Amino acid sequence: MGEALSELRQRLAEIHDLERALGVLGWDQRTMMPPRGAPARAEALATLGGIVHERFVDDETGRLLDRLAPHEGSLEYDSDDASLIRVTRRDWEKARRVPSELAASWLREGAKAQAAWLEARAASDYGVFLPAFRRVHEIALRWAECFDPGDSPYDAFLDEYEPGMKTAEVGAVFAVLRPELTAIVAGAGEPADNSFLHGDFPVALQQEFLDDVLRRFGFEADAWRLDATVHPFATSFARTDIRMTTRYKPDNLRALWAGMHEAGHGLTYQGADPALERTPLSGSPSLGLGESQSRTWENLVGRSRPFWARFLPELQRLFPPLAAVGLEEFVRGVNRVAPGPIRVDADEVTYSLHIILRFELEQQLVDGSLSLEELPEAWNAGMADLLGVEVESDVQGVLQDVHWSRAAYGYFPTYALGNAISLQIWRHVQADLPDLDAQIEAGEFSELYGWLRERLYRHGRKFTPLETLERAIGESSIDPQPYLEYLRAKVGALY
Amino acid sequence: MGEALSELRQRLAEIHDLERALGVLGWDQRTMMPPRGAPARAEALATLGGIVHERFVDDETGRLLDRLAPHEGSLEYDSDDASLIRVTRRDWEKARRVPSELAASWLREGAKAQAAWLEARAASDYGVFLPAFRRVHEIALRWAECFDPGDSPYDAFLDEYEPGMKTAEVGAVFAVLRPELTAIVAGAGEPADNSFLHGDFPVALQQEFLDDVLRRFGFEADAWRLDATVHPFATSFARTDIRMTTRYKPDNLRALWAGMHEAGHGLTYQGADPALERTPLSGSPSLGLGESQSRTWENLVGRSRPFWARFLPELQRLFPPLAAVGLEEFVRGVNRVAPGPIRVDADEVTYSLHIILRFELEQQLVDGSLSLEELPEAWNAGMADLLGVEVESDVQGVLQDVHWSRAAYGYFPTYALGNAISLQIWRHVQADLPDLDAQIEAGEFSELYGWLRERLYRHGRKFTPLETLERAIGESSIDPQPYLEYLRAKVGALY
Repeated sequence: MGEALSELRQRLAEIHDLERALGVLGWDQRTMMPPRGAPARAEALATLGGIVHERFVDDETGRLLDRLAPHEGSLEYDSDDASLIRVTRRDWEKARRVPSELAASWLREGAKAQAAWLEARAASDYGVFLPAFRRVHEIALRWAECFDPGDSPYDAFLDEYEPGMKTAEVGAVFAVLRPELTAIVAGAGEPADNSFLHGDFPVALQQEFLDDVLRRFGFEADAWRLDATVHPFATSFARTDIRMTTRYKPDNLRALWAGMHEAGHGLTYQGADPALERTPLSGSPSLGLGESQSRTWENLVGRSRPFWARFLPELQRLFPPLAAVGLEEFVRGVNRVAPGPIRVDADEVTYSLHIILRFELEQQLVDGSLSLEELPEAWNAGMADLLGVEVESDVQGVLQDVHWSRAAYGYFPTYALGNAISLQIWRHVQADLPDLDAQIEAGEFSELYGWLRERLYRHGRKFTPLETLERAIGESSIDPQPYLEYLRAKVGALY
Repeated sequence: MGEALSELRQRLAEIHDLERALGVLGWDQRTMMPPRGAPARAEALATLGGIVHERFVDDETGRLLDRLAPHEGSLEYDSDDASLIRVTRRDWEKARRVPSELAASWLREGAKAQAAWLEARAASDYGVFLPAFRRVHEIALRWAECFDPGDSPYDAFLDEYEPGMKTAEVGAVFAVLRPELTAIVAGAGEPADNSFLHGDFPVALQQEFLDDVLRRFGFEADAWRLDATVHPFATSFARTDIRMTTRYKPDNLRALWAGMHEAGHGLTYQGADPALERTPLSGSPSLGLGESQSRTWENLVGRSRPFWARFLPELQRLFPPLAAVGLEEFVRGVNRVAPGPIRVDADEVTYSLHIILRFELEQQLVDGSLSLEELPEAWNAGMADLLGVEVESDVQGVLQDVHWSRAAYGYFPTYALGNAISLQIWRHVQADLPDLDAQIEAGEFSELYGWLRERLYRHGRKFTPLETLERAIGESSIDPQPYLEYLRAKVGALY
């Protein structure tokens, strides 16, 4: 039995290495690659991705899993070995349904569509993106047909990012959020002044500020980097090789929050138990759980009063024009509630409304009730309806996000689920660390990171999202109420 | 037959994709990776490298090559298809002799030894490097045993980098160079003043200068980048994704020549016939041929009087303290002949003497007459003997180059061969482009690049090094005399 397990571990370690190699190709593609490297990169991604898929779905993996079933039953459910066997079986059964050729095509056409998306953004013309989008969209639909239909054709997509979650469950959470968030926006009154966040902010100084903040958050020396990109993301090639990105603009400071957001993802990678390295358990249980942590560090920490009590003087030292801005004014400004066209620039209240629109449109694209041609118009109508925002151009509208260039349907809803989960967890953090505000005000994050690592991050991908939540805070469903209470209280206090 | 050929092409294209993926992992490792990413990167390189090797040596490749042999005989020797079959057969027969496990180990232990080498450099202590060096050294010797012994145990190593070249042939060229170069150094008299090359040179401005020069050399827009590293190198992931590196130091300008050197490699990648893309023919015929071009752009262009007549004013604009330096003084300074401890900082005359030392030491390491423990002492003795230089520390001596961290024996001699070849080719360039100096003085390089591309670069890796030289200039052996004549004339004119 020990032999079968070590054989499985070796197979999975090699597949993990290849997935990390894919990760390096993707990171480079989005941060460093000269634009004209795109076609060759698409081929490299497709070839390597096809091989990863082929090796993983090999019959031998299934035979090893079968041989290990009795052993699994004799182990503690929470043990690393039982979790490895259980999670691998689920991954393998899903991957087996997909032809390797299709997995490779998705990577190839996704890489090409991403290049087309960048071109379309530069031209602010959805039409430039459409042909490549259609190819990757059709591959995605073929992929979804590999799975049992479930209650909704959208379920297969959702399950990729939020394992076990059903479209109907997400719909139920969003049905609560939609009217409540709309009401909070309506009640927020005149948006706070945040004009001081626009001005002349040299990128090198923004980098300096973020480097300092990330070090303080708890990143280990010589084990991470932060680079510039068009659409911020985080990835890791090991617990000690974490790559974060942000989008710098010399005329505003949004890169700071995007950077802290990605740092939240980075900390979950770093916080995973080292025993899970080079196994499929070293990731995040779901995008929703991951996003709960990026939103925690971006918003619950990075837009809080105690945080800026500590860091505003530092920011003012780097950017002297901010010297005239008082702490209260600054905190109100960075928490300004005002509908706008861009999701990644949205405040905490309107953010999830952007997501609800995408969730609705994606379901229609998948069930065929909305065509790709009709998408921009439906987008603009939805923005007017949900947020009262008039969209002025494709780049301010339907072209703003990278996700659809990979037809990564099912990804967006996890952002709003993450918002809700972040507050469920934060309530427990606050109860356990009564001194938290004072620590943050002192620039001290080690107890916070330690709590999150011990309760949450160390589990990596051993459990389903809800099992993980249960182990972290004793709750086993997604509850949007703490998030709504937090927003109501915050908006009430600030306005 | 068409089917067998297209099957071979498809197999090779996929292997090429995977090799490019290995290239991205290596580039990232040497330019971007946080130091603590090294152990995981070693595993990823080994896993992917093992798969590349396995797929290439597959029996099916051999069957396809056999089926294609009659077709090959019916094609022109110089045709792309005949060259593809011929070169693949040579590569395949060599690779078949090496177990995939050994190929993977070499990558893994090489990556680890590279990290150890960086640590040893930081401590300037060869002892820190020795254990990792021993592991990779032993793997290299096992690898060499996979081949027929030949005349010298060193032949197998040399053949990796300079296909078809024998140790005795290199020895014969070096036997000419050694006394002649020593005599030129001795006759050069007092070294020219180059103190103006040391001072305060902000890295960002050095980058600005190099970016401009590289654009003018002929790199296509959006198809290359230049980054910082410890040990400069160039690589490419496509004709339109070329990565060059240099080593910036804020207190001197050496990065400029290191950058132009790597640009020479980059231009050979860019200049290959686009029809060779995604095939094993898209590289360079040998390191010696490649090096002839990096030395051409670094020295024959980048240290020439006409070049600096054009670019010195630009450099003076960026670095005002240089304003007091006249053109003659500058050209004399950047061509200063003076023995020193560091190969990459060496002038054109002493450079090949550094190589001759390494060639001699490597043969002794390979035949066992010198142990790894004795290497630093032998190094220091050789430096005293060949160059009259006393080595003050390991980092100034035996630890200065990255190559031995991969036990890449046989690599160094190609540098000196490249010096010789560069002048053989340059004589023909000068004869065909009588206006060349005036073009360079005008910052115009398109005719030069066009000549080199048409005569040399476009062939990629279709032919052996000497076949390539024959096609480029009608000469089919390496002749050190033009190089020596050039050095004698230059030293005579400058001193």
